[in-house]
Amino acid sequence: MKVVKFGGSSLADARQIRKVVDIVKADPDRRIVVVSAPGKRSSDDIKVTDMLIALANAVIAGGSYTTELNAVVERYAGIQRELGLRDAVVSEIEADLRGRIEQRSDHDAQFMDTIKASGEDNNAKIVAQVFAEQGVPARYVDPKEAGMLLSDDFGNAQVLPESFANLKALRDEKDVVIFPGFFGYTRHGQVATFPRGGSDITGAILAAAVEADVYENFTDVDSVFALDPRIVSDAPAIELLTFREMRELSYAGFGVFHDEAVVPAVRARVPICIKNTNRPEAPGTMIVAERKYEQGEVTGIASADGFSAIFLSKYMMNREMGFGRRLLQILEDERLSFEHAPSGIDDMSVILRSAPLTPTKEAQVLDRIRTELEVDDVTIEHGLSLIMIVGEGMRYAVGVAARACAALADAGVNIEMINQGSSEISIMFGVKEVDRKHAVYALGHALLRIGKRH
Amino acid sequence: MKVVKFGGSSLADARQIRKVVDIVKADPDRRIVVVSAPGKRSSDDIKVTDMLIALANAVIAGGSYTTELNAVVERYAGIQRELGLRDAVVSEIEADLRGRIEQRSDHDAQFMDTIKASGEDNNAKIVAQVFAEQGVPARYVDPKEAGMLLSDDFGNAQVLPESFANLKALRDEKDVVIFPGFFGYTRHGQVATFPRGGSDITGAILAAAVEADVYENFTDVDSVFALDPRIVSDAPAIELLTFREMRELSYAGFGVFHDEAVVPAVRARVPICIKNTNRPEAPGTMIVAERKYEQGEVTGIASADGFSAIFLSKYMMNREMGFGRRLLQILEDERLSFEHAPSGIDDMSVILRSAPLTPTKEAQVLDRIRTELEVDDVTIEHGLSLIMIVGEGMRYAVGVAARACAALADAGVNIEMINQGSSEISIMFGVKEVDRKHAVYALGHALLRIGKRH
Repeated sequence: MKVVKFGGSSLADARQIRKVVDIVKADPDRRIVVVSAPGKRSSDDIKVTDMLIALANAVIAGGSYTTELNAVVERYAGIQRELGLRDAVVSEIEADLRGRIEQRSDHDAQFMDTIKASGEDNNAKIVAQVFAEQGVPARYVDPKEAGMLLSDDFGNAQVLPESFANLKALRDEKDVVIFPGFFGYTRHGQVATFPRGGSDITGAILAAAVEADVYENFTDVDSVFALDPRIVSDAPAIELLTFREMRELSYAGFGVFHDEAVVPAVRARVPICIKNTNRPEAPGTMIVAERKYEQGEVTGIASADGFSAIFLSKYMMNREMGFGRRLLQILEDERLSFEHAPSGIDDMSVILRSAPLTPTKEAQVLDRIRTELEVDDVTIEHGLSLIMIVGEGMRYAVGVAARACAALADAGVNIEMINQGSSEISIMFGVKEVDRKHAVYALGHALLRIGKRH
Repeated sequence: MKVVKFGGSSLADARQIRKVVDIVKADPDRRIVVVSAPGKRSSDDIKVTDMLIALANAVIAGGSYTTELNAVVERYAGIQRELGLRDAVVSEIEADLRGRIEQRSDHDAQFMDTIKASGEDNNAKIVAQVFAEQGVPARYVDPKEAGMLLSDDFGNAQVLPESFANLKALRDEKDVVIFPGFFGYTRHGQVATFPRGGSDITGAILAAAVEADVYENFTDVDSVFALDPRIVSDAPAIELLTFREMRELSYAGFGVFHDEAVVPAVRARVPICIKNTNRPEAPGTMIVAERKYEQGEVTGIASADGFSAIFLSKYMMNREMGFGRRLLQILEDERLSFEHAPSGIDDMSVILRSAPLTPTKEAQVLDRIRTELEVDDVTIEHGLSLIMIVGEGMRYAVGVAARACAALADAGVNIEMINQGSSEISIMFGVKEVDRKHAVYALGHALLRIGKRH
């Protein structure tokens, strides 16, 4: 049995929805379909979810919200017309929205979730109708009825453990289940949403609950690529990937899906398949717990900008019991996550994401390091990129590091940092942001034998 | 003005003591001479300090200590005869020792220090006599009289800040100052000793106090070598080294002196010169605050066995605020210093010295990591070596890492760990202990262009 999730771009208009129906019809194992809200039809389009947020904000602001409401209704009306569905569909959606607005409480976050969730909820109802009209026995399943119970962290809810047992019953549905993504209900019966990208979470939870053979995640790319296709145009597709490789790659910029979203499927060891709604015949990328590999083989190279490094030095630092721990404590006090903290003899550095490091926080952290740790010197550098070379085949593979370093040296890219050994399946390089693309290009050429020097 | 320190092997017998006198006579800037206790005359000899520890233990044990006392007195008698000093010297030393024994209090550590310190103290008196007989105006200076004040951590004392001002007066001595190393006095007038190797500390304190131009540290090697001469027989000498390079190199096994010992000189930016008592004409190794360097130039390669690595993995670790800090806290609670703590996405490892990691501690630490950090997996690996490639010229030098990795790959040495970037002037590699010599050989060949493949 397969759980199939379709993202917003796969459901943006009638043409896309028809593709979805065809895909589900093509494989009788596709028994549970998770549906997102309609996404962008073109790059300058607005997602339904964003329209709903605007609507909720207008209601909360207390003025007129007619424009915002009409915009949402009109978007669904367009889909209804294109699909040739009965007229009543649009008035039912408008009635649903007005009903949600009337339920407005003083709890803005909870109200926001109620409005936002309507995007997936109404879309699932439409999709279920299309399936029925195409002769596919299918039914919309209400997350409340199915027992998708979430914590009451509105906008950032977590699944509650009992949901898995509740949702397991969906295995026995005779019809295809059309399940709205992104939201569930609290124990008090209130709508709560997952973080953004939450339809992936819904799909992963369902896949784990029904012990699916595969969790198919349909999006708008053919597969995960071994290199960022924005940097290297002829980047090869990855057909098979382990969960660990996926984590290492997605950490540094492989944005096919949010890796945190699929944790329930990973924990249940349900293979995940990334496929393209627009080219379902392409094999896609399969992500599994374990795979065969050849020594020295590199699976992919990911990279991301937006890192900063704090460097500090203190003579005889390494004799100071607790120094590293106190440094990390300062960051934790300031609610800053660190990515890496390589240490030398009299030096230590901390790599962290630049975004949460506001100028105020930065000044505060540097001041505390200076005064509390009594360092000889502390400096900060912004504009760093991290590059991850990832592959199960890198376990104990002498030579990958050598080839990578040589490629960077030949390309004239200075290596600010190397971190190898904490993970068996990756090497991390730090370079200046300005050097990132050049570095990825050189590494792709040397390790994946693709691309030509530019 | 130069402060000159002679180690135990430089003062082991009359022939060596005469060399010391010649060295001091050869340079009128050598105004302050720090003297160790007589060291080993051959590899199976016993240091006077070890004889004194045996004597103190015999006294503490409460039985006869005649054998131990006679052994010490006989050692000095030999030196006296060889030097042709007056007979009274030996009876004065015996009287001094009996006087120290009579002062025995209930405080064993303090008593031990009183006995141990006699090794340097009596040797300084002998050396001062030899200088006088050779026509060099010289006088023994009592550390108490000079104001060498220490904390009362007997056996592990620290210099008190006011000592520097007290000792500065030695600048104005007309005669050559012969100063016993290794000990000073507490504010209550009790003898206290530095940790072992403490004559280096005495010299560094005096060099800082008198603002010496150079602190000459005479030992039994010509210089610091770029590679361990026990591994590579034709290891080249290093003529000029910075304090930072010295720290990085001595961390991983460059055992010319204990780097912690010379901190006072480093803080005062007094250059340190390592020289050989037996070949004073050799230039030695000068250690300075700053030096010129060429990009890409490697100064030395050091290595040491005896490290362990704890590897732990936990899915989604990097989203857990405070994870790294809590790991380091566990180590700190167990009084374990960590050397490095490289982290990946879902992995973290901690490199620490194996010696303090007793089986009980190891079990305790692993158990706490398992239960408190709720990791998916934790393992420990022993028998690791660290190799440091060090050089000021490695700042921003593209290519050194590449050449090093390639050399290790060619030599078939698997790299367990690479840490580059926390220190500007070093790269650290972790390899299995069994691979260390082979790795150092290969790196020496590739980076220092010396040695042939074995």
